[in-house]
Amino acid sequence: MAQNIYDTPEFFEGYSRLNRSVHGLAGAPEWPALKAMLPDMQDLKVVDLGCGFGWFCRWAHEAGASRVLGLDLSEKMLARARSETVGAAVTYEIADLDELVLPEAGFDLVFSSLAFHYVADAARLYATIHRALVPGGRLVFSTEHPVYMSPTRPGWQVADDGSKVWPVDRYLVEGPRVTDWLSPGVVKHHRTIATTLNLLIAAGLRIDQVREFCPSAEQIAAMPALADEVERPMFLMIAAGR
Amino acid sequence: MAQNIYDTPEFFEGYSRLNRSVHGLAGAPEWPALKAMLPDMQDLKVVDLGCGFGWFCRWAHEAGASRVLGLDLSEKMLARARSETVGAAVTYEIADLDELVLPEAGFDLVFSSLAFHYVADAARLYATIHRALVPGGRLVFSTEHPVYMSPTRPGWQVADDGSKVWPVDRYLVEGPRVTDWLSPGVVKHHRTIATTLNLLIAAGLRIDQVREFCPSAEQIAAMPALADEVERPMFLMIAAGR
Repeated sequence: MAQNIYDTPEFFEGYSRLNRSVHGLAGAPEWPALKAMLPDMQDLKVVDLGCGFGWFCRWAHEAGASRVLGLDLSEKMLARARSETVGAAVTYEIADLDELVLPEAGFDLVFSSLAFHYVADAARLYATIHRALVPGGRLVFSTEHPVYMSPTRPGWQVADDGSKVWPVDRYLVEGPRVTDWLSPGVVKHHRTIATTLNLLIAAGLRIDQVREFCPSAEQIAAMPALADEVERPMFLMIAAGR
Repeated sequence: MAQNIYDTPEFFEGYSRLNRSVHGLAGAPEWPALKAMLPDMQDLKVVDLGCGFGWFCRWAHEAGASRVLGLDLSEKMLARARSETVGAAVTYEIADLDELVLPEAGFDLVFSSLAFHYVADAARLYATIHRALVPGGRLVFSTEHPVYMSPTRPGWQVADDGSKVWPVDRYLVEGPRVTDWLSPGVVKHHRTIATTLNLLIAAGLRIDQVREFCPSAEQIAAMPALADEVERPMFLMIAAGR
């Protein structure tokens, strides 16, 4: 079973104050890139793995999806998602991605935003997703980039001249990484980019597109702190097809 | 036209003394991983882009390839390759990968070891390779990993306790990188891993396997300096299919 850090009061309070929690998709700087990787949503059956407050589920519904299922491990997040329900076409259920079960050929699109790095057994997850997709179906997901996740000390090193470097080590050493983010002891699972791609391919999926989040000039002008994000990749985004 | 650094006396002398130049494939620690990505070589028509001294061409011939063409920009390297010729089935020609022309559907396997990072226009290169492959043909290549290549100062930062980190910056800033390796002013072209994969896919190739060089325990025991290579990825290896 995956760690349910989101339901601890400290983490939940901190997470609820993030831009992406307050402003939804508009508060997530990688959303325009991820959105551009999505198929036409009209009449699609969609599942969102790690749906959180349900922002994507509501967007998918507005974009024309016929049926949207949001799954998350956090009771608190699902409670808030359900409180903002938009109709019977969007439903939410508790699920642990480490023990995920999905109906065979039940979905046209499997979506996930920043949840897969909490999953220990990615091979099992991708096999489950492959079975859950109809032929021609798509998987589009974001995850923390392994370059972001691998270091012993995942933080900027700032030189006297103000220049910053990201101190990569242990990149080829896969396995758990424990960090203090919003609350202490958050467990993520580091996999190299090669492992992620090879596991998707081994599950029977075709790699269609890969992106590494890079803020646009407009985004940096609007939020100067985003300039750091050109120095090292923070988010990895992959579109794959069955 | 690509920079021909290999034919400058200083670079050529230095390169000729590298383990991989003296001992060939056995002196290249990533070779076992790259070899495992190759198809059965029996009766294949093979081209090696950036063949250097011809070590791979001779190996391919011994492994059963029916015809092997080695291409390189360096007259000096080709001269030595030709001096160790193994028969009419293996030939060598001068070629600039930035202006590469190959016969249509002329090859079953396009191979390249650590040459593509010298190429400015990867989209053109991959399109040329796609046209040169027969249906069912394969591209297998290694290149410097973008995490290795991107930094302003591509070298280890060593802490007082002896721990090492690789100082990543400018990862999302693609373009030339000039380093001093064997001789000053060596020009390489940094592309993110996403760009490399997307350009291969856009050229019509299917991503079959991705590897990031990681030394085995046996390799580290035999050559302790290789232990550093688990800290950050040095080589990226990709197998793609038409």
